[in-house]
Amino acid sequence: MADAPTTCQGEAATPRDHPRGAWATLSAVRARGPLVHSVTNLVVTNLTANMLLALGASPAMVENVEEAGELAAVADALVVNLGSMSAARTEAMRAAVQAADRNRTPWVMDPVAVGALSYRTAVARELLAHRPAAIRGNASEIASLAGGDGGGKGVDSTLGSDEVLGLARRLALDTGAVVAVTGAVDHVTDGDRELAVENGHPLLTRVTGMGCSATAVIAACLAVGETTGADRLTATAHGLALFGFAAERAARGAAGPASFQVALIDALYGLTEAQVLAGVRIR
Amino acid sequence: MADAPTTCQGEAATPRDHPRGAWATLSAVRARGPLVHSVTNLVVTNLTANMLLALGASPAMVENVEEAGELAAVADALVVNLGSMSAARTEAMRAAVQAADRNRTPWVMDPVAVGALSYRTAVARELLAHRPAAIRGNASEIASLAGGDGGGKGVDSTLGSDEVLGLARRLALDTGAVVAVTGAVDHVTDGDRELAVENGHPLLTRVTGMGCSATAVIAACLAVGETTGADRLTATAHGLALFGFAAERAARGAAGPASFQVALIDALYGLTEAQVLAGVRIR
Amino acid sequence: MADAPTTCQGEAATPRDHPRGAWATLSAVRARGPLVHSVTNLVVTNLTANMLLALGASPAMVENVEEAGELAAVADALVVNLGSMSAARTEAMRAAVQAADRNRTPWVMDPVAVGALSYRTAVARELLAHRPAAIRGNASEIASLAGGDGGGKGVDSTLGSDEVLGLARRLALDTGAVVAVTGAVDHVTDGDRELAVENGHPLLTRVTGMGCSATAVIAACLAVGETTGADRLTATAHGLALFGFAAERAARGAAGPASFQVALIDALYGLTEAQVLAGVRIR
Repeated sequence: MADAPTTCQGEAATPRDHPRGAWATLSAVRARGPLVHSVTNLVVTNLTANMLLALGASPAMVENVEEAGELAAVADALVVNLGSMSAARTEAMRAAVQAADRNRTPWVMDPVAVGALSYRTAVARELLAHRPAAIRGNASEIASLAGGDGGGKGVDSTLGSDEVLGLARRLALDTGAVVAVTGAVDHVTDGDRELAVENGHPLLTRVTGMGCSATAVIAACLAVGETTGADRLTATAHGLALFGFAAERAARGAAGPASFQVALIDALYGLTEAQVLAGVRIR
Repeated sequence: MADAPTTCQGEAATPRDHPRGAWATLSAVRARGPLVHSVTNLVVTNLTANMLLALGASPAMVENVEEAGELAAVADALVVNLGSMSAARTEAMRAAVQAADRNRTPWVMDPVAVGALSYRTAVARELLAHRPAAIRGNASEIASLAGGDGGGKGVDSTLGSDEVLGLARRLALDTGAVVAVTGAVDHVTDGDRELAVENGHPLLTRVTGMGCSATAVIAACLAVGETTGADRLTATAHGLALFGFAAERAARGAAGPASFQVALIDALYGLTEAQVLAGVRIR
Repeated sequence: MADAPTTCQGEAATPRDHPRGAWATLSAVRARGPLVHSVTNLVVTNLTANMLLALGASPAMVENVEEAGELAAVADALVVNLGSMSAARTEAMRAAVQAADRNRTPWVMDPVAVGALSYRTAVARELLAHRPAAIRGNASEIASLAGGDGGGKGVDSTLGSDEVLGLARRLALDTGAVVAVTGAVDHVTDGDRELAVENGHPLLTRVTGMGCSATAVIAACLAVGETTGADRLTATAHGLALFGFAAERAARGAAGPASFQVALIDALYGLTEAQVLAGVRIR
C-alpha cells in the first residue's frame, strides 16, 4: 500500500498533469474493468453498481458474512459504506476489510452519518485499524471520525469542507489513509500533501447517494493505480474530478434532480479524452 | 400532538385556502429542511430519499435496532413503512415509534400489504398503540388495519378508496391518527372531518413505491405543521395534493412509467407558487 | 408443471409462430396481471418491481421467512434470485420454493454469481430439489450450477452463452427445469429441444440487474402459460425475446446506460402488437 515516490511520471509540478492523469486513470478503468466489491447501504446499492458499470468497472455487491471475505479476497478494490448498519453487516464489514488488508487490496471507507449515530461511529473507528487506502466523507463525518465535533444533522453536514482540513490531516496521519472531504470544493490530503478538486455541481446535494457514488468511483481509480502510476492521493483526486465533471455536464440539460442523475450516469459512461482534458480542475 | 383548533389561520371556510395552504406547507419544508427518518422497505429506500430531497426535506434511512431509536429521537418526522419485514426490522420499528411517541414527533405508518400477510398485520396493529400522527394506505390496507375484510391481492387493492370510508373513520377514531385512503381520489379523515384530494394520475399505479413516496411527503408536511399552522388533517391533504399534482405535470411528457418517475421527482423539485395555486384540488 | 404436448396451438412448425406467440403471452400478462412474488437481491428490488409493473404483472417483493411461504402459496409465479444472501434469506428462499413446489406454482431461479461464491453455490444446488420451472443465468453461472467450471469473475461471465450448451442441457435434464443461458444470443433448452433468442443489445451489459429483470419477465410469462397454451420452453423464450426487443427499441435514442434503462421500462410498457410481430426473433 506504500505510495510510489513520484506521481504522474514525475510531472507533478505542472498544472496540466491532472487532467492528463485523470484521463489515464479513466482509460485504465475502462481497459481493465476492475472488480470492485461494495459492502454498501441499502439506499444506494443499485445506484453504486450502475455508477461503477458506467465508469467501466465490474461491480459486485456482497454484504453478508458468509461471502464478504471470500469476495474481498479476489476483488481489485473494496468499498465499505456505513450507511446501513446491523450486527450482521458489521460482521461482513469486518470480514471484508480483514481480507482486503491481508491481500493489500485498496479499500475505501465511506463513514455515512458517523458522528450523528453512536453505533456506527464505534464500528467506523474499529475498522480504521485495518488500513483503509482512502476515506471519503462530508465535513461533519470526517471531523467526527477524526475525534472532533462534527455537528452533523442526520446524513448532512453542517460544516464546510474547508473548515475541517486540520482534522482531515490528522485523520490521514493517524490511519495512513488518504482523506477526502467533499463539499463545494473537495479537499484531498495524505496528511502531508493536499489537492483541491473544483469540479462538481450543487444538484449533487439534491440526489441521494452522490457521496456514496464518489466513494465507489475513488475505489475503482485506486484499483488501477499500479497500472497508471498514480499514487493514492492523486488517484483519489482523479476519481472526484471525473465524477464532479460528469455532474457539471449532466446539469446542463437537467430539468431537476432525477433527470440530472440519469444524465450523470450517461455522462460518466461517455466521457471523452477531449472533455476530460478540458474539464478536470484539480489544483 | 393535539391539533390546533383552527386551520389555515381560520380561513378554512373558503375553497381557495387549500392551494394557498399547500404552497405555505411546501415553502416551509423547503425553508426548514426537516429531518425525516424513514424505516422503510427495501424496494423504495432510494426512491423515498430522492422524493424527500426533491421536496426540500433531509432524509435519513435508518432501520436497524442499534440506531433507529437514537435517530427517531432527533428527527422532525418519522415514516414507518411495513413493506419489508423481519424480526430485526420489527425491533427497529418498535424503537423508532417509541422514541417518536416519547418526543411528540409526528410519525406516519404505511401499512403495505397489511391484511394480505399475517405477520405484518400483527406488527402493524401493535405499533398503532404508539400514536401515529397519520396512516396512509390503499383501500384494502386501510380496511384490513381497521379490522374489516381488505380483500387485497399482494400489495394491490381490490377495493376503491371510497368504499372503505366508514372503516377509515373508525380507524382514525380508534388510533387518534389522521387516516388517508389513496386511490383515484384520496380521502383523508380524522374520524370527524374529511377532505378529498383530486390530484393524481393513473401512471402512479404503474410505478412501484408511489404510495410509499406519498407517505414520505406527508411526513415532511407534518414536520412543518407547527410552522404553518396547518393541522394534521390539512397537512396530510397538502402532501397528497402536492404529490398528486406533481404527478399530473410529470405525466404530460412521459413516454411510459420510467420517464414518468423521473419527471415526477423533477416536477416536485420545481413546483412554483403559481403552479401550486392553480393546480391543487382539495375539497 | 407438465408441459402441454403442443405449443402455440399446434403451429410450432412455422417460423412466424414465435412473434405471434410472444404477443399472446404479453397480452395474457397484461390481461391477467399475475402476482409475481420475488425473493430477489438488494440491488434490483426496485428495478424488478418496475419491470414487472411495466409488463403488466403485479409484483410483490417479500423475502423474510415469516412471510415468504405465505405469499408464495398464493402467487402466480415466484422468482428466487441469489444475488443477496444471508442465513435468514436462505430460510425465506426455502419456505418460498417449498410453497411453490407444493402448489405447482412455477418458480424461476436466478443463480447470480453461483460458482464464484461457495455459500450461494451450495444453497442454489439445494434449492434445485424443489423443481424450478426455469433457471436463467449467464454462461459462467449455468456452467457452475451444472457442475462444470464456470470461470466467472464476480457477477460477470467469462464464457459465451454458446460455449456451455452441453452443460445447460444436462442441468435441464437433471432438474426438469427449462434452462436459459443469456448472452449475445440467448439459448433456451429443456434438455431435448432448443430455442435461440436473438433479441437484445450490448447496453444491457452496462446496467445492473438486466439479467435479473429478464428472469422476472420469464416468471410473469410462465404464470400465464396455462392461458396461452405456450409450454415452458416457449414461454421462457417469449419472455427473453420481449425483454431483448424492448432493449433494442430503448437503445435507439439512449445517450448512455441510465437513459437506456429508463427507455427500456417505457418500451416494455408500450410494446404494441405490430412491434412485437415485427421485432421478436426466436429460432
